[in-house]
Amino acid sequence: MTPCTKLTDLPAFGELRALAAALQSTAIEDLLRDQHERATSYCREAAGLHLDFSKQLLDAAALAALIALAEQARLPARARALLAGDEVNNTEARPALHSLLRAPAAPPGLEHAFAAVSDTRARMRDWAERLNQGRHSGYAGQAITDVVNIGIGGSDLGPRLVSGALKAFHDNIACHYVANVDPADLQDTLLELDPATTLFIVCSKSFRTEETLSNALAARDWMLNAGAAPADLDKHFLAITTNLEAAAEFGISRDNCLPMWDWVGGRYSVWSAVGLSCAIAIGWEHFEAFLGGAAAMDAHFATAPVADNLPMLMSLLEVWNCNLLGAGNHVVLPYDQGLARLPDFLQQLTMESNGKRVAADGTALDYDTGPVLWGSAGTMGQHSFHQLLHQGTRPCPADFILPLTTHTGMARQHRRLVANCLAQSRALLVGRSEEAARTSLLARGLDEAEAARLAPHLVMPGNRPHSVISFEAVTPHSLGALIALYEHRTFCSGQLWGINPFDQWGVELGKEISSSILARMDDDAPRPGLDAATERLLQAWRRAQR
Amino acid sequence: MTPCTKLTDLPAFGELRALAAALQSTAIEDLLRDQHERATSYCREAAGLHLDFSKQLLDAAALAALIALAEQARLPARARALLAGDEVNNTEARPALHSLLRAPAAPPGLEHAFAAVSDTRARMRDWAERLNQGRHSGYAGQAITDVVNIGIGGSDLGPRLVSGALKAFHDNIACHYVANVDPADLQDTLLELDPATTLFIVCSKSFRTEETLSNALAARDWMLNAGAAPADLDKHFLAITTNLEAAAEFGISRDNCLPMWDWVGGRYSVWSAVGLSCAIAIGWEHFEAFLGGAAAMDAHFATAPVADNLPMLMSLLEVWNCNLLGAGNHVVLPYDQGLARLPDFLQQLTMESNGKRVAADGTALDYDTGPVLWGSAGTMGQHSFHQLLHQGTRPCPADFILPLTTHTGMARQHRRLVANCLAQSRALLVGRSEEAARTSLLARGLDEAEAARLAPHLVMPGNRPHSVISFEAVTPHSLGALIALYEHRTFCSGQLWGINPFDQWGVELGKEISSSILARMDDDAPRPGLDAATERLLQAWRRAQR
Repeated sequence: MTPCTKLTDLPAFGELRALAAALQSTAIEDLLRDQHERATSYCREAAGLHLDFSKQLLDAAALAALIALAEQARLPARARALLAGDEVNNTEARPALHSLLRAPAAPPGLEHAFAAVSDTRARMRDWAERLNQGRHSGYAGQAITDVVNIGIGGSDLGPRLVSGALKAFHDNIACHYVANVDPADLQDTLLELDPATTLFIVCSKSFRTEETLSNALAARDWMLNAGAAPADLDKHFLAITTNLEAAAEFGISRDNCLPMWDWVGGRYSVWSAVGLSCAIAIGWEHFEAFLGGAAAMDAHFATAPVADNLPMLMSLLEVWNCNLLGAGNHVVLPYDQGLARLPDFLQQLTMESNGKRVAADGTALDYDTGPVLWGSAGTMGQHSFHQLLHQGTRPCPADFILPLTTHTGMARQHRRLVANCLAQSRALLVGRSEEAARTSLLARGLDEAEAARLAPHLVMPGNRPHSVISFEAVTPHSLGALIALYEHRTFCSGQLWGINPFDQWGVELGKEISSSILARMDDDAPRPGLDAATERLLQAWRRAQR
Repeated sequence: MTPCTKLTDLPAFGELRALAAALQSTAIEDLLRDQHERATSYCREAAGLHLDFSKQLLDAAALAALIALAEQARLPARARALLAGDEVNNTEARPALHSLLRAPAAPPGLEHAFAAVSDTRARMRDWAERLNQGRHSGYAGQAITDVVNIGIGGSDLGPRLVSGALKAFHDNIACHYVANVDPADLQDTLLELDPATTLFIVCSKSFRTEETLSNALAARDWMLNAGAAPADLDKHFLAITTNLEAAAEFGISRDNCLPMWDWVGGRYSVWSAVGLSCAIAIGWEHFEAFLGGAAAMDAHFATAPVADNLPMLMSLLEVWNCNLLGAGNHVVLPYDQGLARLPDFLQQLTMESNGKRVAADGTALDYDTGPVLWGSAGTMGQHSFHQLLHQGTRPCPADFILPLTTHTGMARQHRRLVANCLAQSRALLVGRSEEAARTSLLARGLDEAEAARLAPHLVMPGNRPHSVISFEAVTPHSLGALIALYEHRTFCSGQLWGINPFDQWGVELGKEISSSILARMDDDAPRPGLDAATERLLQAWRRAQR
C-alpha cells in the first residue's frame, strides 16, 4: 500500500486551522438561528440511522474544507480499497475484511473467502437453531439452557454488547460472558448455572489467549467435577479458533470448532463465528438482520459522496474536534439501557485502532491521533459526570445515541428518557448566561446580593459541540448499522491521521513481561532486569500469600 | 469561608512550572535506577492501603515543591476544617460531613448531628438483621429474599459498587440496583424477581428525582398488580428521604423512612442510610467494618503531615499531571473483577466535584480543573484501550488498584492477574526502544529488512506516569478506606484548584429544559424558545410513535 499522507501535510489542513481559529468566538446557537436550513441541512441519513451534526462548531466554509480534506486523503478510494479486500493492514500484510462477513454475496475477487464465510454461517445457523430448539443435550441428557462465552477483548466486547442490547429479541437460550483472568469473573457466573445444561464457547484465535485458556480450563474442571466424562466435553464445549490441535487436546473435536480468519481483527469480529453467542441469544433470523444492517452501512460507505457519507463525516468531525479545536477525548452517550456497554465496545474499537504514534510507514507523527473515548448510558451520566460536560474546563465532544421508541411497552416512561436526551443536548448548546442565572435565583426568592453572589456558579458557557445519532428503535438491523458506522468512522480517522488502524503492536510487550513475572512468581528464581519498584511489589505479593 | 487562593497564584506554582519543564526529558526508569531508595521512599501507607508513586515523573525537588504547594494552599487546615464540620460548601452554606457518618464517636461540637447518625445506624442495623434473618415478610407471608435499590447518581453508584465488590461477604439477601429512567432497566431487573419476596428501597432525598420516582411508581404498579393490597406497600417499600409527606402519599409510612441530611452530598452518601442496601447485602458487622476502614482513612487524613498524607499526595499528583505535565484525563485500572464499577463511581465523585470553571468565590478560572476520569477492570482493558496507553499520543496518568489476594480460593489463577498488573505497570515505565523491537523481530525469524521496516511500529516510548495502590485483599475495611481515600483526594484537588467540590450547579439547567420539553411532548403545545435542531428531533420522535 502507498503510505498515507500525513494529516498536517494535506492542503486543506492549513485552511482548516484558520477556519477553526476564526470559529472559536462563534456561538453554535447563532449559527443555528442564522442559517435558516441548518437544522435539516446538517443532517444525513443512512441504513436507518440519522446523524444530526448541526450542533457541531462548524460552518459551511469549515464543512467544505473538511470535505476537501477527505478528498485529499482519498477517503473514497480508501473505503473502496478496504471493502475490495486490498491489503489495508500494511504492517501485517493483510486485508481487513470484516465487511465480507456480512456481505449478502461475494464481491468480485473474494469468492474463495466468501465461500468459507457462507459455510461458517451455515454452521452457526445450525448451532443456533439446534440449541434454541432444545435439540442439543448435555452429559445428563438434558437440553442446554445456558451458553457461556469465554473470550476477551474482541472475543467478548462485541458479542456482549449485541446480546445485551437486543434483549427484546432473545430466543430460548440465555447467554453469559466471562472475560477477566480474575477467577471471580467465572466463579460468579457459574454460581447460577447447572453444568448439565451449560455449554461453553471458547473464543480465541490461537487457543492460547492467557485469560481465555485459563478460564476455559477452570470451566472444564467444573464440568468434569460435576460428573461429565471426558468424552462428554464435546457436548459442552465449542471453540472459535484456528488452532484445531490445541482445541482437540483440550477435548473439543474438529466438528465443534468454528474458524476465525487472519483477515479479521478481533475488534471487528462480532460478525464472524465470534458472534456465535449472539446468534444463539437472538436466534439466526435476527442475527441475519444484524448482518444486514451492517451490510447496508457498507453499501452506503462504499458509494455515498463524502458530503453525504456518515462514517466519513463523523470521522471528519473527530479530526476537527481533536486536531483543530483541541479536544483530547470523545464521549458517547447512549440514551438506552441496553446500549450501556456501547462505550466499552467503542473503547476497544477506536483506541486499539487509533491509539498509535507512528504513521503507516513507521515515521513518528508530530500531531495527536485517537482520543480517549468514554461515556455511559443516559440518564445515568446526568447524575454523575455531566457536571463536567456542562461546567468543566475540558472540551468533551459528544455523540448522543437516541433510539426514538422502546421495546418495553412503557412509552410514557420512555418519553422521559427522550426528553432528557434532547434537554442535555440543548443545555450543552445554549448554556446559561450570568444574567439568566441571576434571574433564576431571584425567582427562587433569593435577595439581590445573594443572587449576584451565586450567579457566577450557575453560569454555563454552552457552545459545546456534539452530534445526535437517532433511529427508530434498537433492532438487530439498526444495531448492525450503528456498529458498522463506528467501524468505518474509525477506519476513516485512521486514514486521516495516516496510521494503520488494524494492527495493535502496543499490546505485545505487556504480555511478554507478564510471562516473565509469572515465571518469577512461580519459582521465585531471581530474574535479571526487573526494576526496583516491581521487585518491591513482588515482595509485598509474596508476603500477602502467607 | 475565606476564598481559596488560585492555584497559579501559589508561590510554589512557578517553581513547579520550571521543574516540570526540566523533567520532560527525564526517564522515570533512570530515576528508579539512580535514586537507590526510590522504590521504597516513594511509597506511603495508611489504613491498610499502600501507595507507590515511584513511577510518577517527579524527583525530590518536584516532590518538595508539591508539598510546599499543599502547605501554601493550607491543605492540612482545610482537611481539619472539613472534618470539624466547617462550612466548606460555601455556595450552599453547608458543611460536608460525610466523615461524621463513619465516625466512631462524636467529634467536639458535632454531638447533635452524631446523635442522629447513631440513631439512623441503629435503624439500619435493625433492617439489615431483620431481613437477613428472614424476619420480614411480604404480603403473602413469605420472607423477603431480594432487595431492589431504586436511586440514581449518588443514590446508586456507591451502593452498587460496594455491593458488587464485596460479594465474598454477602449475607442472605440478594441486592439489585435500578437507576436509569429507561423503563428497560427496571423491567429487566423485575423479570427474575417475585413480588411476594421483593423489597424496594426508594432512595431520593427530595422523593422527587425524576428517574427514581418514575421507577418507584412502576415498581408499585408491579407490586399491586401481583396482588398486594395498598396496605401491604409498607411491607415492600422503604424510603431514604427527607420528604416524609411525599413518601406517605406514595404509601410508605414514617417508620419505613430513613433520613438523609443536607450536610451530605449524594456522591459522598454511601456511608449514610443511602448505603442501606449494602448493609443488607453484606450484613451489619461487615458494614461497620466498611465504615471503620473509612474512619481509619479520616484519622490519617486529619493528622498525617502532607509528605505522608495519602489523599494529599494523590491530589498533588493529580495537579502535577494535569496542570503541569499537560494531561487531560486520568485512568483508573482496578485489577479485580469486583471493583469493575469503581471507575463509574469515581466518575461521579471526581467529575461532579471538580468539573468546575469558577473559583469558590465565583471568579472565572484561567487554568484547567478536574480531568476526565475513566477506566475499566484489568485485564479487560489490556485487550481494549491499553494500546492507546502504551502507544497513543495522549498522556493518560493512571492509578493501578491491586488487591494482592483473592477470595475465590483460586490463588494460582489470581497470580496471573497480579502478574498482568505488574507487567502493565512495568511496560508503561520502560517501553521498548527501536533497537529492542528490531532484535525481538529478528528473533521471530524476520529478515533484516522486514525487521527494520516493522520495528518503528513496535516502539513504545514508556515513561508514562502512574501509581500503584495495593492492599492485602478487598474487604469491607479496605474498600471503605479506598473510597474515603478518593473522597479526600477529590476534596484536596478542589482546594488546590480553588473551587468548591461540594456543589453541582451545572446539572440544574438540563433538568429545567427536560421538564419543558416533556410538557411539549405531552401536549404538543408550541413552546417558544426551542432551537430548530431540537424542534426537528421532536418531530422525528413524534413520527416514530405512530
